This record gives sequence, structure tokens and C-alpha cells, in this order.
Amino acid sequence: PEDAPLLKIENTRRYGAEIILYDRYTQDREAIGAEIAAKNGSILVKPYDDPRVIAGQGTVGLEITEQVDGNLDQVLCCVGGGGLISGVALAVKETFPDAAIYASEPIGFNSMARSLKAGKRVGNEPGSKTICDALMPPNPGEYPFAISYELLSGGLSVSDSQVRSAMAEAFLHLKLVVEPGGVVALAAALNGLIKCKDKTTAIICSGGNVDPVFFSEVLDGYF
Amino acid sequence: PEDAPLLKIENTRRYGAEIILYDRYTQDREAIGAEIAAKNGSILVKPYDDPRVIAGQGTVGLEITEQVDGNLDQVLCCVGGGGLISGVALAVKETFPDAAIYASEPIGFNSMARSLKAGKRVGNEPGSKTICDALMPPNPGEYPFAISYELLSGGLSVSDSQVRSAMAEAFLHLKLVVEPGGVVALAAALNGLIKCKDKTTAIICSGGNVDPVFFSEVLDGYF
Repeated sequence: PEDAPLLKIENTRRYGAEIILYDRYTQDREAIGAEIAAKNGSILVKPYDDPRVIAGQGTVGLEITEQVDGNLDQVLCCVGGGGLISGVALAVKETFPDAAIYASEPIGFNSMARSLKAGKRVGNEPGSKTICDALMPPNPGEYPFAISYELLSGGLSVSDSQVRSAMAEAFLHLKLVVEPGGVVALAAALNGLIKCKDKTTAIICSGGNVDPVFFSEVLDGYF
Repeated sequence: PEDAPLLKIENTRRYGAEIILYDRYTQDREAIGAEIAAKNGSILVKPYDDPRVIAGQGTVGLEITEQVDGNLDQVLCCVGGGGLISGVALAVKETFPDAAIYASEPIGFNSMARSLKAGKRVGNEPGSKTICDALMPPNPGEYPFAISYELLSGGLSVSDSQVRSAMAEAFLHLKLVVEPGGVVALAAALNGLIKCKDKTTAIICSGGNVDPVFFSEVLDGYF
């Protein structure tokens, strides 16, 4: 998207990619991707709606099960299209079938939470905004939703200001640089959207593509 | 020290400590500590000049040896009084006797580098300044120097501006918040003070006590 963090665009370019920008509010990336793939004979690698991508992201869940000492009560995970959480849920439930898995999303882009309630995929309201640039899908992916509907316990929706404070707390206590979309699960826990006391909770912080200027602004606003 | 990062002071207080501030340029913390310990009957835990502290810090070296896949050519480590590097050197050399261990220090506080050359402990010039607030000892500790003189291959001295850019690069690529004193080894590598190409190099980044305002300033100055 043309409003992606400059850092993300720049790093992607540095890895040798050709970058084609689009307007996420008016254009359809699926269509753009399909057209480019057809023209160039390339393979389209979808960000979440592909069983192989889900399996790859599920290795985060394998790492969690390896690191847990004792029982695991719950897992909080950021959700955009749902690839990461569905892979994580598959992996974690294998070892900890009773662990509750919760989707964390930004308010305005909590289509997974609403889809879980509705029992079918529902979309996000067009025109919604959030600072979580990586979590703005039109709706949950087809594979991710099918898996999530089977395995997830619910959704938690956080505000931009809760995201900002979680970024600052991650800076302060975890010494980690986490992008807005990467910190929504931590934001849900820190703001009491889910009970963590006396429970073993795994919180996934994923993604550090945040522009330095914005990161400074978040710190300046919090301290 | 009364000019320690507010974050460090605040976090220490939150852990339940009583904090006694002093002026590092005019007062002697060894004397202050000894006096308090004598008056209260407490035990003085020195930051580096104690074999048990060195052994504890050496577990960083054990972690390195466990994580290295294949050979280890060199290790770069930040040095204040020398506790961390002497523990690390003892641990690493046990498994990799040929690994070269280098001390990284701020210019103006490179007493380990100069002591290694002199073959005896020499002090830092009084009145020197650096942004690396955790690496400003009067000289290397007695135990750390004895171990380092046996096991180290030399010292690398970095400037404050090299430290700032390394902090920004750690933010950008490692997604880590590292304090000035914690990033000197990375600064030495990034600025070519030591050849890393085609070598397996372990770089220790240790310490994240950096005030948000200062961190923002570092980012703003770099990007």
C-alpha cells in the first residue's frame, strides 16, 4: 500500500524487490497481484490465504509449545487476514488442546472477532482507519477463517491509543521495537481486555516495521 | 550516579530499592558503598570486581557457545569495569580456545584497551565524557583485568557518534532497544574497527536503560 511505512518499503527494496504501490482504500490488491502474475508468468504468494503460508507462520506456535514450561492457558495473537493466528492455533492446540486462542485486532478492523460471532466471514467497514497499517484486510481469509472458527475462543479489539501505549511499554520493559500492528495482542493484555493473572499466557509480538519518526512520536507522547 | 538515566533510577526504585545518588565526577562510590555496608551490616555486591559476579555474567558466554553452529572466530563485548567480558572470555575460551575476544569501549573510557597494551591497570582521564553512562569506571577491575590480560586479543574504541548510529541501526534492523553503553560492540563492528567479513562473530548487545527522550533524539538525528 502506498501508505505503508517508508521503512518497510525501503527494506523491501533493499532485498531486491520491484515495488508497485497502490491505494488500499480505492484499489484491489488481489486483482493487481493476479494481473501482474498473469502477465509475467509469476507465482502469486498470498500474505495469508494459502495453506502453505499458514503452515509456515504456524512455526511461531511450535516455538511457543517448545518454550512453555508446564501448562499453557491462553495465547493472544495479532490478526490481519488471519494467517498467523490460524497457523499458531493449529500448532498450539496439538500440544495444548485446552489453551484458549484469542484474536487481537484494531477497532474498525476487527472482522475476525465479528466473523467468529457471526459464524461466517464478514468484512470491515470501508473507510475505517487505524495506525495498525499491517492489519487492514477487507475481511479474514477463507482458509484462516475456516481454521479459526474451529479453534479460536474469541476476539479482542484495541484502540489506537492502547496500541501506542503498548508500543511504549514494549520499548520500556521488553526493549523491543514493535510496530503498531505487531503490538495489538500485548495491548489487549495490558489494558485488561483479558484476564492474565494466575494464567500462563503467550503473547505474540510480531513485526517491527515502524518509521523512526513515528516511533519517536509515540515515545514523546507517552513519557 | 546522579546523572544515570531516569529510566534506570525509576526501574530500580520500582524493584523496591532505596536509591542513594552521588556525583561520579567528584565522589568515590567504592567509599560510599563501603560506608553504607559497614553502617547497616549489609553485604556489598560490587558491579564487576568479584569472581562470583564475573561467573554470573559469564553465562552470557555459555549461551553464545550453545548457540554457535560450527566455529566461532571472534567475540566483541562492551567493557566498563570488565566483569562481563572476563566472564564471557572464560566461558567462550573453554569451548573455542582460538576465538579472539575484543573489548569495546567508548573513547575517553578505553582503560581496558590501554591496560592491555601497558600490561597493567591504567586509569581513565578524569573529566572525560561519553554518552555511554554505564561504561565510565575509573579503571578496569582487578579480577577482570587479570583474566582479560590472559584471554583478550585487544581493545576497540568507539566515538559517541558511532554509538548513536549503532543504536539507530539496532532499532532499524534488530528491532532492539539498546542503551549507549550496550551498543559499543555493535558500533565497533559496523564502523569497521574489526574485520567481520567471512568470520563468525558474536556481538554482545547488553543493556536497554535508555531514556525515551534521548532515544527519540538519537533516532531523529540519524534518519
